[in-house]
Amino acid sequence: MIKYYSVNGKIVTKEEASLGINDLSILRGYGIFDYFLIKQGRPLFFDDYLDRMQHSAKSIGLPLPFSRQELKQQIYDLIKANDLEEAGMKLILTGGYSEDGYTPTTPNMLILVATLPSYPLTHYTEGIKLMLHEYHRTFPTVKSINYLMGVNLIPQMKAVGAEDVLFHFEGHIHETTRANFFIVKNDDTIVTAGEGILEGITRKKTLELARKCYPVEERNLKIDELQTAKEAFISSSTIQVMPVVQVSETTIGNGKPGRVSQHLRQLFRELEKEYLSALLV
Amino acid sequence: MIKYYSVNGKIVTKEEASLGINDLSILRGYGIFDYFLIKQGRPLFFDDYLDRMQHSAKSIGLPLPFSRQELKQQIYDLIKANDLEEAGMKLILTGGYSEDGYTPTTPNMLILVATLPSYPLTHYTEGIKLMLHEYHRTFPTVKSINYLMGVNLIPQMKAVGAEDVLFHFEGHIHETTRANFFIVKNDDTIVTAGEGILEGITRKKTLELARKCYPVEERNLKIDELQTAKEAFISSSTIQVMPVVQVSETTIGNGKPGRVSQHLRQLFRELEKEYLSALLV
Repeated sequence: MIKYYSVNGKIVTKEEASLGINDLSILRGYGIFDYFLIKQGRPLFFDDYLDRMQHSAKSIGLPLPFSRQELKQQIYDLIKANDLEEAGMKLILTGGYSEDGYTPTTPNMLILVATLPSYPLTHYTEGIKLMLHEYHRTFPTVKSINYLMGVNLIPQMKAVGAEDVLFHFEGHIHETTRANFFIVKNDDTIVTAGEGILEGITRKKTLELARKCYPVEERNLKIDELQTAKEAFISSSTIQVMPVVQVSETTIGNGKPGRVSQHLRQLFRELEKEYLSALLV
Repeated sequence: MIKYYSVNGKIVTKEEASLGINDLSILRGYGIFDYFLIKQGRPLFFDDYLDRMQHSAKSIGLPLPFSRQELKQQIYDLIKANDLEEAGMKLILTGGYSEDGYTPTTPNMLILVATLPSYPLTHYTEGIKLMLHEYHRTFPTVKSINYLMGVNLIPQMKAVGAEDVLFHFEGHIHETTRANFFIVKNDDTIVTAGEGILEGITRKKTLELARKCYPVEERNLKIDELQTAKEAFISSSTIQVMPVVQVSETTIGNGKPGRVSQHLRQLFRELEKEYLSALLV
């Protein structure tokens, strides 16, 4: 049972963990966050996630109130307090309590813990459907808390049986609401958007692994390329690598998860194991 | 002194007014709000604002947890508790405490009170400068809490001496971060964006007044039209009608507040007086 969160460096019970309603996240949706997994009681790819958190904070002009070392200690303390083996951990940095209701002040720093989301095995063995929607995130390289569009589309997405929404803009595919998107061409080349996206840590790791076996192209991905793609997949921390077999009305390849996607999923799972083993040495 | 806020229909002290950090406003910036003035202890244009709040809530799929009458009573109670004569009041409706950190649940309803913002008199007598920025708000007709772009631009705006940021997109001017925007052409025609904007209550009232004296066009406003505009102004609840004399590098007209803007400001102030007098009958 998860009992504790952290608010501004102090461990508090979930019930106590609160923010005054003058916080700029509540007033103006102003904040950034990051999210990583705890496995075997250890944060997975810890420094990669903290690097990204730092990048988001800097991009949005919110100073992190703790040093890297202090933040790590708070996270280790929270793992211990909750006796965590497997969990998802979310860091949120908000615009703080604003005097005028608009201008950021000293940020508030929150750490939340949740049970690991799990997906039906069939998502991996049969693949999933995505729904296309025209939209481009504001400050796409920043992991801001702004999910107005994604959350708003939940009912529509469920109505068409899609598991996520794939955003495209001016003819190019960028990413889904919470994952990166890839296609595999007939010659096994993997293509994914090179800019205008949130650079996922799982994306980065997967591309590193992919480059050892396949040609990889990080570039503008045209929406038309879905028609001729042999495979497609998405990546995220919780999803890892998940095959996509349909995008709105377009069936991808033969409508079944492909060999390359499954290979990359396997490689990523091995990488995760290696990372955790290395921590034990 | 403002002492009390309201959280989910209960009056609490400002210090007690808080949300658990699992609220979807904090996790995903998901919420809507509205803001109106209290003058002489009465909410100004009360039903217009409650109509818009209702429109925003419906558009974003969040049910208002109170009836119009209940909400009005809570607002009157809060005016009484704080012994308010003049103030700004903000209603916020959030996505609620989310189980999965993404899907909206029972919304949380907040009411905050603040002292009325005031602007230097010179803003009205000499006019202000705006800074152009390319951006179009997500769900522009909804008063969502998403101000990621506006808040992020504060330092840049201050650096160039602008009082607000004017958003344009695909060659058209929509609105500023928190106000509607108008130009006055040489023949005294008033032009303002007809769609893709938040429909301000002050905008609506001002246009109603303007139509009695001037030609009014609600239509796509081209960015080039700034070059030949005789006057420009913005409108909002706190600002009322404020002349604009410069937009980035473009001087508007002769660089001084114009006759039409000043006339409309005067008409709006009279309307406000009439509204308040009528309440006393």
